[in-house]
Parts: sequence; structure tokens; C-alpha cells
Amino acid sequence: MEKRNATVAVIGAGDFIGAEIAKRFAREGFAVFAGRRNGEKLEPLVKEVEAFGGTIFGRSLDARNEEEVAAFLSDVDKHAPLEVCIFNVGANVNFPILETTDRVFRKVWEMACWAGFLAGREATRLMLPRGRGNIFFTGATASLRGGSGYAAFSSAKFGLRAVAQAMARELGPKNIHVAHLIIDAGVDTAWVRQRREQIWGKEALDNPDLLMPPASVADAYWQLYQQPRSAWTFEMEIRPFGEKW
Amino acid sequence: MEKRNATVAVIGAGDFIGAEIAKRFAREGFAVFAGRRNGEKLEPLVKEVEAFGGTIFGRSLDARNEEEVAAFLSDVDKHAPLEVCIFNVGANVNFPILETTDRVFRKVWEMACWAGFLAGREATRLMLPRGRGNIFFTGATASLRGGSGYAAFSSAKFGLRAVAQAMARELGPKNIHVAHLIIDAGVDTAWVRQRREQIWGKEALDNPDLLMPPASVADAYWQLYQQPRSAWTFEMEIRPFGEKW
Amino acid sequence: MEKRNATVAVIGAGDFIGAEIAKRFAREGFAVFAGRRNGEKLEPLVKEVEAFGGTIFGRSLDARNEEEVAAFLSDVDKHAPLEVCIFNVGANVNFPILETTDRVFRKVWEMACWAGFLAGREATRLMLPRGRGNIFFTGATASLRGGSGYAAFSSAKFGLRAVAQAMARELGPKNIHVAHLIIDAGVDTAWVRQRREQIWGKEALDNPDLLMPPASVADAYWQLYQQPRSAWTFEMEIRPFGEKW
Amino acid sequence: MEKRNATVAVIGAGDFIGAEIAKRFAREGFAVFAGRRNGEKLEPLVKEVEAFGGTIFGRSLDARNEEEVAAFLSDVDKHAPLEVCIFNVGANVNFPILETTDRVFRKVWEMACWAGFLAGREATRLMLPRGRGNIFFTGATASLRGGSGYAAFSSAKFGLRAVAQAMARELGPKNIHVAHLIIDAGVDTAWVRQRREQIWGKEALDNPDLLMPPASVADAYWQLYQQPRSAWTFEMEIRPFGEKW
Repeated sequence: MEKRNATVAVIGAGDFIGAEIAKRFAREGFAVFAGRRNGEKLEPLVKEVEAFGGTIFGRSLDARNEEEVAAFLSDVDKHAPLEVCIFNVGANVNFPILETTDRVFRKVWEMACWAGFLAGREATRLMLPRGRGNIFFTGATASLRGGSGYAAFSSAKFGLRAVAQAMARELGPKNIHVAHLIIDAGVDTAWVRQRREQIWGKEALDNPDLLMPPASVADAYWQLYQQPRSAWTFEMEIRPFGEKW
Repeated sequence: MEKRNATVAVIGAGDFIGAEIAKRFAREGFAVFAGRRNGEKLEPLVKEVEAFGGTIFGRSLDARNEEEVAAFLSDVDKHAPLEVCIFNVGANVNFPILETTDRVFRKVWEMACWAGFLAGREATRLMLPRGRGNIFFTGATASLRGGSGYAAFSSAKFGLRAVAQAMARELGPKNIHVAHLIIDAGVDTAWVRQRREQIWGKEALDNPDLLMPPASVADAYWQLYQQPRSAWTFEMEIRPFGEKW
Repeated sequence: MEKRNATVAVIGAGDFIGAEIAKRFAREGFAVFAGRRNGEKLEPLVKEVEAFGGTIFGRSLDARNEEEVAAFLSDVDKHAPLEVCIFNVGANVNFPILETTDRVFRKVWEMACWAGFLAGREATRLMLPRGRGNIFFTGATASLRGGSGYAAFSSAKFGLRAVAQAMARELGPKNIHVAHLIIDAGVDTAWVRQRREQIWGKEALDNPDLLMPPASVADAYWQLYQQPRSAWTFEMEIRPFGEKW
Repeated sequence: MEKRNATVAVIGAGDFIGAEIAKRFAREGFAVFAGRRNGEKLEPLVKEVEAFGGTIFGRSLDARNEEEVAAFLSDVDKHAPLEVCIFNVGANVNFPILETTDRVFRKVWEMACWAGFLAGREATRLMLPRGRGNIFFTGATASLRGGSGYAAFSSAKFGLRAVAQAMARELGPKNIHVAHLIIDAGVDTAWVRQRREQIWGKEALDNPDLLMPPASVADAYWQLYQQPRSAWTFEMEIRPFGEKW
């Protein structure tokens, strides 16, 4: 593995998608900085990456806190120029409108939209003077469709998509690639497996073709990163071949 | 004018669109409750409506405050059953991403999205037991497009649209009509006139066909209200005939 | 009923939607010209309209034939100025891609898209010199979504929507209102009832709230016609309150 | 270069995009079959590919003729299993609606939509029994937006997109990847250069960042081909970094 003098920040480095993104870019020689609420939980990821010779740093990070986000990214950029910033914080909930409390609505927005704005803006602050960089946001089915019960979650995801669009239009001509990846499917995580089993029963897990492996999301981000600037994608959706849509 | 035993709440009853909505429904015999930040500014509207024999009440209301919103709508519903709730708070701003401060981003969201969620939820709380009602939200071009510089505004408007969609899907089958009206044009307000003059010069105001009269927005809401439940519209956009789109 | 010196052309005046549109505009005093493949089938409609004192003319018309369309609209316009032209030809079919024959694909396109282009263009030819008019197109769920098995039908409906959009953008500034009405539901016709019964059984017809009465579509067109030019809608969708979407 | 026992069909192998796609897949070891109206014009492409050791066959093909398309693809599949079929026929024209003749409207549709349906269906016929394959369609800005003057072109492109969507939904679960690539920019071809110069003057060509190199389109197709089936993209758009959108 040839090491690069460039860093990748993963904000929202959970056990599944975030971890796979971190591994993917680490394998390509980037120094990866992984941030999540409870940084101790990053230990297995850090060990796995170091085991294959990759460079990774795990950090506790409250992505909703502007000072923490700015400090985190500034640290990353001091290690080596920030080449890619991926915002991957999720907050999927479903409640009837009358049971959607103020607290839930606000918290989901802070995690899935506000934090994304902070990450995007602070990454821009570092990339703009240098005239290059990549800022990617993880979207979902709820980024395009406000389904029944998803007032809080889809509102935040719609909002994040707007942030990404506005940034892409402003920053594209300045050589910063902003993209929004829509995962139009359940990703194969412990949480999704549990939820599907609750709703549809154990049979719902029988068809592995309907759950997207987290590594495939990482592949999609890697594809976005490799695009020449003469043909950048702002938005693409991915789903498993067996998914109904 | 035949008075009806039914109320209409206008949340965000500014001098232009909100005032016209209030007048339109008052002329149709509804008791209208108009709420805006500074209730004293409602005096001319109240006088105008009373002059033609309509019923209207003006109230100071911080639409971002859940208790104020709940109390306001509860008051309305005590006067007579809440038949229509229209959320019309705007917050149009444009800043490059690096100049979009935390304060601006959060405030715009609180005004244009969070407050809409509160209004919609609290209206639902009153309408659902009765099994009827109408909840309408004012959208904009920025509800569908995140233009350069509009990270804050379009994020909030996208988010509001998602709230409306989720509510429409949940509440339609319960006989509550939720709709999202997209105004894809500048409305003829003092603020828009000033802004257009700044950007394009006085000539930009020469073509009256490109500014939408606030009363036309009120007409569109009246059309939505009149639809039979066998053919409800969730979303429609309106623009002046001369508008480029 | 006050008669107007203005005509309405309904191209695709079938027994359900088309007939209701014809009745609606006839009741408002327009002279209506109804065209359909087999003009003899218009007899009951003509009798019904004449019975309430309306003016209507039924014609045999192959909407796919440019000369017939031009002659039909020219005749209409000779009677009185063509004020509204509504294109309402349907052609819903569903086949797996391998069973979608050349003949089916081409015929569905000719009926649902090509004929719409002809109607729109020939109506424009009459309206443009006069600087006023309304051209409305009936859309469907398949105008926005290419579902499995709908290659032929949705291709034609997507294509018709593009024609309508291009015309709206060109003709709006010339005071011609072009609109596209999306019926996002099954309409209560003999054909739809039969199809639903085949697929889901008789129970599927038990819930009348899920089938849209054809008269409601006519109401929607009437609303579009009444809009002031300062706030025209290009596209709106309608669905029964109980519909899942 | 390792040769593969698999073929790629490029239908609409013009001098720019089509030629680059052919070269890209030939370099990856596929036997490429390039079809275009006048097969003789493929000679330079064939020579170029053979010069680097690639395998390519050029054929005259009227993509609007179902028998020719079926015969072409059948030939391809006899050489080696048809792995990828790319439909790339364009037909961009712009006319005011009254100057859009029957002939133009029909011809543009036959080239850009009907031919795409034929290509997709005949490719499916070969791929389905084998349970694998890739069918890609080239889209454009006009696939999503019916601009003024684009009734013919955007109608055909909307229609093609619907075909692609319907096929993707039907064939995805059968392990056939159907994708629609939207080129939201001018591609650097002789025709586009000429047109831009006519409209905006020579200066319009000064900024090379606004014209997409045909090879970048080929890269995007190559990315789509490489996606794992657990995360297929149906639709993605590409544009040069400097493009306004």
C-alpha cells in the first residue's frame, strides 16, 4: 500500500457504513480520521485498519457541536491536506405525527441535517483556499420521499439534500466535488435486521439480496471519488438488485 | 356574507400573502385568526376586514414556540372548530456557504421548518378527533431546488415539504387535507421589489407580469380548500404567466 | 345558463372523464366539441347535455391523424373562438418487456403522446394569433413513474408530459395557459373496476374512496381554467383522500 | 490486455461518445460491436481499436428497424455472450412548437425512444435466459426538463427514460442491470461546438471546463458496469465541474 499525503474525514463512523468507508479509503493509502459520538467504540475499527497497514485515527466527536467539528477537521487537515470529507450520521425514526415530540424532531434534525451543514461548511473552509476537495453526504430513500410517520427523519434528510445541492452549485466551479449518495434500501446492519424482523418476521431476513452490504456503500463513495472533474456526479442512488422501488 | 361556524388560522400573517389569505377566508364567512411575531402590525388588516363585515382576530405569536402555537390554535378552536390552518412563515436569505453562520442556519430552520412542524402537529391534534380539516403550507422555488447560496433557506424549505408530505400520507385517509403550495416566482412585496431593484436595477420592476400579486396566492389556497376529497391535490405550483422556469 | 361565444374542444371524449369534462364546460355556457374514435358513441352525452340546455357537438375523430385533428379544431374555432383544448386520450396497458410488441409500443405512443402533440400544436396555431387560450393534458401516475410492465404506457405518458412542459415554457409568456393534470389514482370507470376485480378480487371495489369519480377530474380542469394568469399552475396531481402514494 | 469471452454492443456509435465507449470496453478486453447508420464511418474507430490490440466489429445499422436490431444483437451474441448493451442514439433538435413538423416529431422519437425500446427489448431477449447482463441508456438534460422549443427532443428523451425505468424495475430482480446515465452538459463534439459558437459566439468555446470530453462519458459507463449487484445505480447524472445547473 502506497501511503498518500492526504486525509479523509468520516463523520459518523458507525460500525457499519462508516467503518467500511474508513477501511476502503485507508486501503487506498489515505490517513483516515474517524469520528463518532463515543470514540471508544472505534477501537475494533482502528485495530482492523492498522492490522492491514492502514493509517487511521479514531476520535470522539459530537457532530452537532460546531466547535468540535471545526476542531476535528482542523486537526485532520494539520495531519495532511483534507482530501475527502464524508458525512454519514443517521437518525432514522418513525412516529405518527402526534407522537413526534419536539425533542425528537429537533434532535433528528440536529444529527442528520444541522451536523451535515457544519461538516460541509467547515470542510469547505479548509478546501476552498486550496482549490480542491471532495465533500460527500449519505442520503436515504427518505431524502426524496416523506413517507407516513417520517416527518422528523425525512424532514432532516430533505434538508441535508438541500445543503448538499446548494454547496454543489456554489463549490463545483471552485473545483470541490460535492455529492449526495442516496441509499435506496436497507443496509445490512444490526439495527435494520432487528427492525425488519419485528415488522415482517424472520422470513424478511431470508433474502440477502435485499439488504445492502455496508462495503458496497463504500465502493460507491470510492467511485464518486475517482470521477474526473469533467464528469462529476452530484447525485446517484444505489439499491440491491432485488429491491422493489 | 353568511358567517360560518368555523375558523381559519393563518400562522405568519405578514403584510402581503398572509394578509390576503386572511381577507379571502374572512370574505367567505370564516372567523380568521391571524398570528404574527408582532401582533400590533395586524391592526390595519383587522380594520380592513372588519370594514367589510368580516370576523378576524389578530394575535402576537412566536411560531417557533411550541407552547404559544398550541395555545394559539387551542384558542382558535374554542371560538369555532378549526377548519383550515395555513402556515406561511418565510425566511428567505442568501449567503455563500462560508458566510452562512450557525445562527442564520438555525434561525431560518426554526422559522421556516420547525415552526411549520409545530403548526401542523398542533392543528392535527385538534382536527384528528373531529375527523376533518385542512392544513396548508406555503412553499417556494427553494422547496425543490437548492440554489447556490441557499443552503439555509432551501434546507428549511425542503424540510418543510417533507413534513407536509409525511403528514399528507398519514392524514389523508383520516379526512384531513394536507397540501403544499409552491410559489415559483417572486411575490409582489416591498421586500422583493427592493431586492430585485438592488440586483437588476429599476427596470426589473417594469414588467408587472413577473411579480405575483399576493391575492393570487390566496386564490390558490381557496381553490385547494374547495377541492372535493375524492380529488385532493397535495402539491401544485403557481407562477405568473410571464415567468421563466 | 348564459351562453358564451367561446368553444371547448375535448379530444378523447370517452364515457367517463371526457364526458364529465364536456358536461362541466357545457354547463358553464361553452359550446363543447367532443371528439372520439367512434363518434356514434357520443350520442348519449350529446342528449344529456342538450337536455340541460347546453351546446355540444359530437364528432368522430382519429386523434392520431394530423389532418383530422387540424380540421376538427378548425371547425371548432369557426363556431366560436377556441378557448380551451383538453387532450384526454388514454391507452393504459401493462406487459412484460418481452411481450411488449412493436405494434403495442407504437400504438400506445401514437394515442397517448403523438396525438397529444398534434392536438397541442394545432390548438396553438389557432390561439397564438389571438394571444389567449388554454391547453390542458391529462396525465397519470405513469407520467412520473415507469413501473414494471409499463414500458409502453409510461413511455408515452412521460413523452406527453415533456410536450406539455415545453409548450408551457414557450406559450406561457404569450398568454396561453398550458397545464398537465396528473391523476394519481384509478378513476371510476368500467375498465378500471374490471381490472381491479381481476387483480385483487371483488373486495377491491368495496372502498369507494379509492376510485376517483370522473366528475372530480372535470372539477380540477375547471379550477385550472379559472386561475388568474398571475398565478397559473403548470402541474398538479389529484388523488382520492384514501389513496396510498 | 486479457481478452474476455463476452461482447459489448454499442448502438449509436457516433464519432464522439459512442466511439469512446467502444474504445473503453475494447481496452478492457471485450469484443465490441459498434453499430451506426452508416457503417463505413466506423472505419477509423475500428483501425484505432485494432491498433491497440482490441477486438471490434463495425456494422451498418438502422436502429429504428426492429429486424435489423434483432439481427445485429443476435450476431453479437453468437460471437460471445452479450454482456453489455449501450444505447446511445441522439437526435437533439430545437424548434418552436408551430415549426415542429410531424416528420420531425416522429423521426426524433423513432431515433431517440423507439430505437431504445427495440435495443433494450432485444438485449433482454438474449440476456434473460442467461440470467445476467447490463443494459445502459444515454440520457440528457432534456430527459428531465422539457425546455422551450424541445417538445420533440425532450418528449423522446422522457420516453426513453420511462422505458429504462420500467425495464430496471422488471429486470433488476432477474440480475440484469439497467441504468440511465444523464449527461447534464454539452459534450465536446463538432456539432455542439458549432452550435455554441452560433448562439453565443466564439467565446463560448474558450472555457473548456464547460464541455464534457466524450471519454468521460465512457468512464461513467465503465463505473456503472463495475458496480456490484448489491448496490446498483439506476440513474446518475454527470456534468463538468464548471457547469451551471
